[in-house]
Amino acid sequence: MNVDFINPFLVSLTNVLETMAHLQLQPAKPSLKNDDSARGAVSGLIGMVGPQCKGSMSITFDADLAYEIMFRMVGERPKSMNDEVTDMVGEITNMVTGGAKRILAEKGYEFGMATPTVVTGLSHRIIHKSKGPKLIMPFNSQWGKAHIEISFESQDAAPAAPAPDAAGS
Amino acid sequence: MNVDFINPFLVSLTNVLETMAHLQLQPAKPSLKNDDSARGAVSGLIGMVGPQCKGSMSITFDADLAYEIMFRMVGERPKSMNDEVTDMVGEITNMVTGGAKRILAEKGYEFGMATPTVVTGLSHRIIHKSKGPKLIMPFNSQWGKAHIEISFESQDAAPAAPAPDAAGS
Repeated sequence: MNVDFINPFLVSLTNVLETMAHLQLQPAKPSLKNDDSARGAVSGLIGMVGPQCKGSMSITFDADLAYEIMFRMVGERPKSMNDEVTDMVGEITNMVTGGAKRILAEKGYEFGMATPTVVTGLSHRIIHKSKGPKLIMPFNSQWGKAHIEISFESQDAAPAAPAPDAAGS
Repeated sequence: MNVDFINPFLVSLTNVLETMAHLQLQPAKPSLKNDDSARGAVSGLIGMVGPQCKGSMSITFDADLAYEIMFRMVGERPKSMNDEVTDMVGEITNMVTGGAKRILAEKGYEFGMATPTVVTGLSHRIIHKSKGPKLIMPFNSQWGKAHIEISFESQDAAPAAPAPDAAGS
């Protein structure tokens, strides 16, 4: 996995939250994730499969940040981690991945998106079990943090690098 | 999603645990999942994408059952939800999905598997956000319960039913 894979998700999350909720996150420095796991109140997760690589992506939100996004989108602040909040987190996960998928396709990386899954539970941890490196990108806001984690591995049948003609096909 | 999708996962989980850990789970009645979510100590999750449908599958284990499987596989009982346990759950998730994928391919349903993700945290909940129905299959053992949850939706481009020639292509 190379740096090509990081920015599309970072750009896509900030775009989606600006467009949907007029909310600006401050991206902090991405890093390789070793032991430290993002912990939060709610996470959206999605799997991706392409001819060159496969992997998974998660976005974890602190509860207050998830509630603030919900408030800005629907005008009411949820009092608990209810179905509306988990639906919103699933939808954001889908939109962020869809945005990143379009950017990555232009770079020659094609993949299909599975359906999102949402995890709740205070201090839940998500561990990506792909064979590739795990990258974590923190985002700050006055309502709390968000973390994107991505991990991709090459498919056995093909190299990780895009074929020269993949972008034009 | 039809009943064709349930049995391959059920059969595959019981096969994998019998083969890897000489452990027999008692499958209970599968049901459509509405509000009630499986809660457990550790879950493996995987996304699937095919030309006809896409979805996600999770397997949730009670901690004591996960520790018993680990004990039977490596001869030592873990004292906490450590990396070895989450690796094992990720691997079981991969093997169960791989087994189900082979059975489903024979029925004409082809899909690619993303990489597994493992979720820990007491009382975490996993909510599949596909547009299709959610099916939950409980399994009992003297060490605790396991739950498989699957949800698939049709891809927009193609009907959910396999094409007549899909199995032979």
